[in-house]
Amino acid sequence: MEPIPDSHPRKASLLARKKIVDASEAGLLAPSAMIAHGRGEAFDYLLGERTTDRARLAIRESAARMIGSNSPVISVNGNTVVLAGKRVIRVAAVLSCPIEVNLYYRTPERVSGLLSLLDELRREVSMENPPLGFNGHWKKSVESVLLLGDKADFNIEGLDGPRALCTKEGIGKSDSILVPLEDGDRCEALVLSGKEVIVIDLNPLSRSSINASVSIVDEVSRAFKILLEEVLTGASEVPDWDNKEGLREAITCMAESVGRI
Amino acid sequence: MEPIPDSHPRKASLLARKKIVDASEAGLLAPSAMIAHGRGEAFDYLLGERTTDRARLAIRESAARMIGSNSPVISVNGNTVVLAGKRVIRVAAVLSCPIEVNLYYRTPERVSGLLSLLDELRREVSMENPPLGFNGHWKKSVESVLLLGDKADFNIEGLDGPRALCTKEGIGKSDSILVPLEDGDRCEALVLSGKEVIVIDLNPLSRSSINASVSIVDEVSRAFKILLEEVLTGASEVPDWDNKEGLREAITCMAESVGRI
Repeated sequence: MEPIPDSHPRKASLLARKKIVDASEAGLLAPSAMIAHGRGEAFDYLLGERTTDRARLAIRESAARMIGSNSPVISVNGNTVVLAGKRVIRVAAVLSCPIEVNLYYRTPERVSGLLSLLDELRREVSMENPPLGFNGHWKKSVESVLLLGDKADFNIEGLDGPRALCTKEGIGKSDSILVPLEDGDRCEALVLSGKEVIVIDLNPLSRSSINASVSIVDEVSRAFKILLEEVLTGASEVPDWDNKEGLREAITCMAESVGRI
Repeated sequence: MEPIPDSHPRKASLLARKKIVDASEAGLLAPSAMIAHGRGEAFDYLLGERTTDRARLAIRESAARMIGSNSPVISVNGNTVVLAGKRVIRVAAVLSCPIEVNLYYRTPERVSGLLSLLDELRREVSMENPPLGFNGHWKKSVESVLLLGDKADFNIEGLDGPRALCTKEGIGKSDSILVPLEDGDRCEALVLSGKEVIVIDLNPLSRSSINASVSIVDEVSRAFKILLEEVLTGASEVPDWDNKEGLREAITCMAESVGRI
């Protein structure tokens, strides 16, 4: 790929695309991961590739719910690790919660490849300066983020086959789960199992968005950047959270892109 | 992939996705082809995976312009061949126009792979019954559709490097060009070179959609099916064609998907 000039208005999107293509070629992603990424690109394009005010509110609500839960967990797939790995680790370090690699198209190679990548990123993040507002021992907090997923010893209720697999220590015992880019069936099963389910999904019409407790309609790496700020300031819940209203607003925002023609 | 039941409301979309994944694995497509396909899926999802009335009008206008031009050509990339190859050949047979394989990320292997595939599809289409409304010798008309692209002996004005390459006999001498799924830069260069440029693109905000003479905001295989009907009935031009109005209407249609939440 030719270098993208800093002035290019869509630089972030093009760099993200390159990360996904490279990770696919390295075997870290399922064959359909690039298609899923493309779908996300389209919705983000309509949103103007920015975090809307409503998404910001959803992120605040998510932060408050994660902070208030007993056993939060962040479940990540390949695209999330590739696009936002470091940012996920920072949030997990502040929340002291585990990260579980949990793949819809699970293969042992991809799970261990993603865990190795996360391990490397965790080491890098542990060497960084603590984020503004963090009180505590950053290096120790980062190093103690559990990276789970290689030993699947639990099943998500209501699902069959490999896509039901998870770890007891992570998703199994969690009461609140942040699942960026989750499959619709699994999101539904997680909600039915009584957990609080927070999704990050650019498609406001996806079954994940519609079924989740809180849906963040935003690009995953932008969302995690803001989520870090919110967990650091100890966000409080948004009064009378109406998730479907947020989804309708996202579509309305997309419709406003008509002004760009 | 598990078989998809006929009753599945999104069967066509899932089968199209499978075609793209398979063709990628067979080396027929550029690495970013799956991402591009995913973007299309998202816009089509918002449209409700159907051809809108306005897209139907754009197809009629395109048919009329292709029929009225002296040297029409259909320029195809990998995704178009994979998703709509036979339908493209049928339209070319009725219009007696060449098909040129013209790739943004050109490699000799992909050009010749796609030309072989088209050659095979042309043989299959030549054995079919002629479409309703076709007067003439179907087998002969299909067999005489030229498949161009392996010898690039011409340059599209205003572009550099491999993406400028085309054939003199196809794009070079054409006055009217149908380019499904075209890159924005190339679309702009083709328009500036004085050609009538008709695009098929699900993104109503893309530079291709905005710069083209006629933009068909529809899924490529659905569009070619209707285009065949229109060229067979000898469509006449739509009075006072306003291309940008059509793009705005497409966004409005997408926004109506809010009713699905």
